Amino acid sequence: MKVFNQTLTIETKGFSHIIDITNQLESAVEESGIENGTALVFVPGSTGGVTTIEYEPGLLKDFPELMEKLIPSNRSYHHDQTWHDGNGFSHLRSSLIGTSLVLPIYRGSVIHGTWQQVVIVDFDNRPRRRNVVIHLLGE
Amino acid sequence: MKVFNQTLTIETKGFSHIIDITNQLESAVEESGIENGTALVFVPGSTGGVTTIEYEPGLLKDFPELMEKLIPSNRSYHHDQTWHDGNGFSHLRSSLIGTSLVLPIYRGSVIHGTWQQVVIVDFDNRPRRRNVVIHLLGE
Amino acid sequence: MKVFNQTLTIETKGFSHIIDITNQLESAVEESGIENGTALVFVPGSTGGVTTIEYEPGLLKDFPELMEKLIPSNRSYHHDQTWHDGNGFSHLRSSLIGTSLVLPIYRGSVIHGTWQQVVIVDFDNRPRRRNVVIHLLGE
Repeated sequence: MKVFNQTLTIETKGFSHIIDITNQLESAVEESGIENGTALVFVPGSTGGVTTIEYEPGLLKDFPELMEKLIPSNRSYHHDQTWHDGNGFSHLRSSLIGTSLVLPIYRGSVIHGTWQQVVIVDFDNRPRRRNVVIHLLGE
Repeated sequence: MKVFNQTLTIETKGFSHIIDITNQLESAVEESGIENGTALVFVPGSTGGVTTIEYEPGLLKDFPELMEKLIPSNRSYHHDQTWHDGNGFSHLRSSLIGTSLVLPIYRGSVIHGTWQQVVIVDFDNRPRRRNVVIHLLGE
Repeated sequence: MKVFNQTLTIETKGFSHIIDITNQLESAVEESGIENGTALVFVPGSTGGVTTIEYEPGLLKDFPELMEKLIPSNRSYHHDQTWHDGNGFSHLRSSLIGTSLVLPIYRGSVIHGTWQQVVIVDFDNRPRRRNVVIHLLGE
């Protein structure tokens, strides 16, 4: 059994900025030499997220607009009374979308749809340098 | 370590059609001979989803109604201006619900609740023949 | 390859009660002796959930309020006409948030953010004694 662990460092703009990491994930699998197993993408931090999406300009607007509709940024949350950093909405979006994603590695490749990319979303209310963990397990 | 990979092909009606694949998952675990490990269900494609639900007639109506409320199908999304296929809502629902689910395999069985089924949801705006990957890892 | 399986039993208050299980997860990893692998947290049952959140008093109010806004408890769902237990909203919240979470185990520790806790949410409409499965795989 092999375990391969890599941390990507990503510069984000915050505010539901969506970053496509599919290429980095595929490179990690190649580098690891793992033929069959699982690829875990994990975002340490309580204002980030990971999901899949077709990475095209329309959805890059639609997804942040959806977040704004479901969890508006322009109102006050109890969290903001604790820390006064004004990012209560960021935390809630992270808990809703999730910070963990697992994909199959099969015959040396990560399985995903042709128009389905693996993306990190930074829900925070400011630009950030963010770590993302790629964690591969298999043989 | 064993890895077992199987692709199910499912005919769907689209429009948040919910398909129970619990039996297929359990059969795959039995066939694999894996006693302890993890069972990953992954939907390649950017308009599908996987989650768990009690598969009973009421919730089979409630869940699509929830999707319609959170991400209405009867409005225009930026995505639709890119491709003109009118399924922007399908993509957003997929990103929200997710396309990956991991369950424990323990003593030869997949762990899940008695009234908790593993379901695929096809969020697309048309019937589809859809692939679903069952990817088991363990020993 | 090692597999370590443990079931936590948790007393909850229901109604989106949030329980921090980060310490129990870290103890399980230590006990397992697994240095590198994956930690799966799975909630068997169709009215529970698992996610990550900063476990602080503000968000412990904000998250249940978000659930109430997205999936109100004070209306009727088709599910309630099937079973008359009045917890249709609980099921829908579980399907939305999910019952499965995977984290990396690396160099003997579970990777997560400093202010990012692993939490169980009980969406049911009554107090419950709930099982949560911690399932570790690695070496």
